[in-house]
Amino acid sequence: MIIVMRSGATREDVDEVSKHLHELGFQTRPIFGVTKTIVGAVGAPDVDKFGAAEQLRAYETVEEVHLVGKPYKLVAREAHPEGSIVRVGGIPIGGPGVVMMAGPCTIETEEQVFATAESVSRAGALILRGGAYKPSTSPYSFQGLGVPGLEMLRAAADRYGMKVVTEVMDPRKVDLVGQYADMLQIGTRNMQNYDLLKEVGLARIPVLLKRGMSAKLEEWLLAAEYIAAAGNEQIVLCERGIRSYDSFARNTLDLAVVPAAKAASHLPVVVDPSQGTGRRNLVTPMSLAAIAAGADGLIIEVHPNPDHAIKDGAQTLRTDQFEALVPQAKQVALAIGREILAPDPVR
Amino acid sequence: MIIVMRSGATREDVDEVSKHLHELGFQTRPIFGVTKTIVGAVGAPDVDKFGAAEQLRAYETVEEVHLVGKPYKLVAREAHPEGSIVRVGGIPIGGPGVVMMAGPCTIETEEQVFATAESVSRAGALILRGGAYKPSTSPYSFQGLGVPGLEMLRAAADRYGMKVVTEVMDPRKVDLVGQYADMLQIGTRNMQNYDLLKEVGLARIPVLLKRGMSAKLEEWLLAAEYIAAAGNEQIVLCERGIRSYDSFARNTLDLAVVPAAKAASHLPVVVDPSQGTGRRNLVTPMSLAAIAAGADGLIIEVHPNPDHAIKDGAQTLRTDQFEALVPQAKQVALAIGREILAPDPVR
Amino acid sequence: MIIVMRSGATREDVDEVSKHLHELGFQTRPIFGVTKTIVGAVGAPDVDKFGAAEQLRAYETVEEVHLVGKPYKLVAREAHPEGSIVRVGGIPIGGPGVVMMAGPCTIETEEQVFATAESVSRAGALILRGGAYKPSTSPYSFQGLGVPGLEMLRAAADRYGMKVVTEVMDPRKVDLVGQYADMLQIGTRNMQNYDLLKEVGLARIPVLLKRGMSAKLEEWLLAAEYIAAAGNEQIVLCERGIRSYDSFARNTLDLAVVPAAKAASHLPVVVDPSQGTGRRNLVTPMSLAAIAAGADGLIIEVHPNPDHAIKDGAQTLRTDQFEALVPQAKQVALAIGREILAPDPVR
Amino acid sequence: MIIVMRSGATREDVDEVSKHLHELGFQTRPIFGVTKTIVGAVGAPDVDKFGAAEQLRAYETVEEVHLVGKPYKLVAREAHPEGSIVRVGGIPIGGPGVVMMAGPCTIETEEQVFATAESVSRAGALILRGGAYKPSTSPYSFQGLGVPGLEMLRAAADRYGMKVVTEVMDPRKVDLVGQYADMLQIGTRNMQNYDLLKEVGLARIPVLLKRGMSAKLEEWLLAAEYIAAAGNEQIVLCERGIRSYDSFARNTLDLAVVPAAKAASHLPVVVDPSQGTGRRNLVTPMSLAAIAAGADGLIIEVHPNPDHAIKDGAQTLRTDQFEALVPQAKQVALAIGREILAPDPVR
Repeated sequence: MIIVMRSGATREDVDEVSKHLHELGFQTRPIFGVTKTIVGAVGAPDVDKFGAAEQLRAYETVEEVHLVGKPYKLVAREAHPEGSIVRVGGIPIGGPGVVMMAGPCTIETEEQVFATAESVSRAGALILRGGAYKPSTSPYSFQGLGVPGLEMLRAAADRYGMKVVTEVMDPRKVDLVGQYADMLQIGTRNMQNYDLLKEVGLARIPVLLKRGMSAKLEEWLLAAEYIAAAGNEQIVLCERGIRSYDSFARNTLDLAVVPAAKAASHLPVVVDPSQGTGRRNLVTPMSLAAIAAGADGLIIEVHPNPDHAIKDGAQTLRTDQFEALVPQAKQVALAIGREILAPDPVR
Repeated sequence: MIIVMRSGATREDVDEVSKHLHELGFQTRPIFGVTKTIVGAVGAPDVDKFGAAEQLRAYETVEEVHLVGKPYKLVAREAHPEGSIVRVGGIPIGGPGVVMMAGPCTIETEEQVFATAESVSRAGALILRGGAYKPSTSPYSFQGLGVPGLEMLRAAADRYGMKVVTEVMDPRKVDLVGQYADMLQIGTRNMQNYDLLKEVGLARIPVLLKRGMSAKLEEWLLAAEYIAAAGNEQIVLCERGIRSYDSFARNTLDLAVVPAAKAASHLPVVVDPSQGTGRRNLVTPMSLAAIAAGADGLIIEVHPNPDHAIKDGAQTLRTDQFEALVPQAKQVALAIGREILAPDPVR
Repeated sequence: MIIVMRSGATREDVDEVSKHLHELGFQTRPIFGVTKTIVGAVGAPDVDKFGAAEQLRAYETVEEVHLVGKPYKLVAREAHPEGSIVRVGGIPIGGPGVVMMAGPCTIETEEQVFATAESVSRAGALILRGGAYKPSTSPYSFQGLGVPGLEMLRAAADRYGMKVVTEVMDPRKVDLVGQYADMLQIGTRNMQNYDLLKEVGLARIPVLLKRGMSAKLEEWLLAAEYIAAAGNEQIVLCERGIRSYDSFARNTLDLAVVPAAKAASHLPVVVDPSQGTGRRNLVTPMSLAAIAAGADGLIIEVHPNPDHAIKDGAQTLRTDQFEALVPQAKQVALAIGREILAPDPVR
Repeated sequence: MIIVMRSGATREDVDEVSKHLHELGFQTRPIFGVTKTIVGAVGAPDVDKFGAAEQLRAYETVEEVHLVGKPYKLVAREAHPEGSIVRVGGIPIGGPGVVMMAGPCTIETEEQVFATAESVSRAGALILRGGAYKPSTSPYSFQGLGVPGLEMLRAAADRYGMKVVTEVMDPRKVDLVGQYADMLQIGTRNMQNYDLLKEVGLARIPVLLKRGMSAKLEEWLLAAEYIAAAGNEQIVLCERGIRSYDSFARNTLDLAVVPAAKAASHLPVVVDPSQGTGRRNLVTPMSLAAIAAGADGLIIEVHPNPDHAIKDGAQTLRTDQFEALVPQAKQVALAIGREILAPDPVR
């Protein structure tokens, strides 16, 4: 930790700050510059530096505090330098294979979810997505089918040999949703819903953690750290676009966060180009770009008839569009020395 | 609702879209322009237009859909043109008086919370704030004292004739926190935590709804609508700064949202200049600016000794700074024909 | 300057970086922490630290470089601790008086500009604003009347005893516009048009420097430093709203930048609530809030008939609305111990 | 154009707005809804709708105005449905081949620019980039070598059979820079410097138009329209990252704007992953992602010794890193059915 004192800070001011640092367990190393004094604080590896920095910033005599090193530990790349692989019902995310996840935004009917699962599994998707509990911006919009939706989703996945990822929003429903899902999704609106994070941290199944709508990379990794610290390190990060001032797309898909997250953390990183753009015609190019950027998987909204989807139709691929995407995705994956993970007859 | 068809859309395309609108209950009024056709959809006041727009946007032949009117009803200004007053333990927020709320970021010790309450109540604060459950970005930071913190907060408020506002993060704790609080705070990270919103919507006490870190005004009002739709219309909106690309302050305090929210909704609007700036030296000028902009109250972090506050010290006023602020706030309130609400011996 | 080395950096890496710093003229003070080494660079007050930091960041072995102190000098508060006063044709901006500037967005006709000048001067505006060269987003929109517009503006101002501020966009027109103006405005789109900044830096009249659409405070002050370094320290900063993700207003008016800029710099700071909100109904509350936040002046768009204004009508006050605003502004100024500067019969 | 009247608007209000529209040359088609009236304005293809919309928004009785169709014409995809190819000294940008542009941020010495040109041309770059006039945030930072820099750049390009792209910032220097360059670059800070746009619009050589730091796609295309309207349609768009609230990268590289810009406009689109990320380790993955997203070229900062680059070293590839990138870029280009354009011995 580096503390920059304000110009004009006296020797006593520096001593007061140093004393506070010593109480917290740090050793201090002052540097006296021409106009300012800097205090280096070292030697306290286990102190909550995030909290300590906040306290030091409160001094009138302190101008800035810079943290050195990362405030997260379990999810840091250093904890697992070779990268971790998260197995979703046996399907490895984070290995050499890129995993395709696809399905409807919202589970509407048995017919719809089975038709989608049939099509996307044939095309090459291994994991079926679909929402039974929907975080709708308006209380008057459809909120999801709940348990009957989960049942349809599970049945459709089982029928076509797929695994299931679906969102949980309520800490009281983690167990319930976990009975149907192979991976629990935490949506963008709940990235800092800490009681929910702790609850899925107690679950024994993987978690897909979407990035908050305007979350910094560090905040996202600290949200993952909440889950890991509660006992569950099976976490897959999912970039889904950040808030934008522009209107040509619904969000700004931040693909540079993919290599940045993978450099900072050992967790796998996947991309949601549907939420990430909100426009059907942008989904295919951004899917390919995400793979080229190093994503470990894609999660894509697909519907047999998006014109009549209850939600998010504008960003949803038709099943034939998804079928056309997969071969292109394979080419791009090969170009960077990876492959699209294929269904394993033995798995 | 207005549907703009893509150029090249045929008569059949327009008919297909119109048919969909009819099925949803709308009547349609097409306008044929030089290159584009526009379809006006009218006459279905009770349809979920948010959802309907989403469906229409899914058509390849549709370029844009514009909603006409507001997607919220209960919290719309039209529902209560004269503005609503929310009573927090009898203290009216939203009337002519501007309400001062103050207290520590985090409840640390009995001594700290009593000393703060004594000082801020003497200075003119009517409602005591303080966190017993803290949404910390890092899992390793202090998470709050929990119930013992709530007890201290309640005791200090009672001792000095104040009311209590405190945050609840977990839907399972709404009842518990409600036993100690006169107003439940929903923090910025939980503005779209819909299960929590529904739960406080069932509570019988007022809710302070902070704006999400990058929430649009419409999204914020729809979050309030969730609470209202669940049965609780005692909602106070709180602007607390939005995500910024700049670093001179922690957030960008968006004061224009105060008159904008009051024009769109009948709910009272208060401002948090502490979170909203993150810098102690900006709190006082932004408090005065908030009142001038029409805020119905302020919620300010105050600590007897911010240099040793556990959290948020850098944005916390010392008690003497808060004491100096109140007389200035009174002058500004008077300048715009309001007053700072004073403690009422009879209340 | 503080250089944080990556973990794993060797003694040789630290030496290489130190050698580079020595060549630039710095002395170095290393601090060896548990996992990382920090190098403090001191003792080179005249080196371009901005440039030096950029060079150091290029090393693979360097993780972060933090600048200590401000990269601007002439406009820093330290250069003029009591704050500077800029005189626009004798009218002091930056003193105890708050200066009202008003006028149409665009100069349209002699009748329009005279009617506006008559009204706003009577109401209390001392400086007449109006554009003869307009930075229109579309090349097909009105680009301004040019010299005939400048002549009307000057004539109207002279007639009603006002001073003139107007925008210059082209470095080749600085002299020309300077013949008509008492203050040259640099618009938001040109805040980093450095050739234009240098050119107005050679002018002998004050400059109103609007903040760039997404400029950081530091970048804004460095733009001012360009003007000052070219020889012109008569600079007035103008906050005019920053880019927003929301649509309830055209921009986010960042009032906290007013006290922040005044703390960092000795230059006066004024606010443009018209551009800053883009909505007529938000102009009056944000004008009052700006004064309460400490602004040294306001620049407001006023038109006798905004419904027929060529540009920006939606954010333009009618003359009667401006007349109603001034008395309220006076009250708020008084509340914080200032006054609205009144026309001086002797001036 | 669609005008949504406020609820409560009377028949007279609608008539007044309609009259204004008729005067502008529109025909009107009102739609009377339950609570609101909508007026469709059609039949005036040549009216400046941008300006007209602004005027209509000024009415108190008007709630919203939506433009139908695009405010730009010459650069719209419709004007040239098959996409345009811009030839830079004979090199086609916008055809099936993806063009590599590379070179130092700043021209420093003859040795540096020749060494870079030698290396990048050998690796596959066809166009040499390098700044002789640098838009530095600080007036005290290096501002570029000027004409001697241009001479070095031209000589190095000629020596290695490359073409030249370099920035021009000052409208008075367009001719001068045009004597050395095959393509004139307009930097992000000058995207809305309209006098400069008009001046390069008069030039007879191609223009590389970088997106403004927080420009919307529409604003960017309107800036291009300025150049086209002045007579120069040889425009290449360049995405270079937008302002970000996060700090892991210097900007947010918005790759979705590549397919979106290509859908809206016939102009070629290239990507600058160096400025777009500001971090060397992100340049290669984002280069590959840009190609996968459909970019027509890349412009990359390369230096033989970035640790000693005067500017932007942290985002600059070493020559060996660029050499390693090109073969990967070739693979990704092939994967999507394109190729990296190779030097043509005959050209």
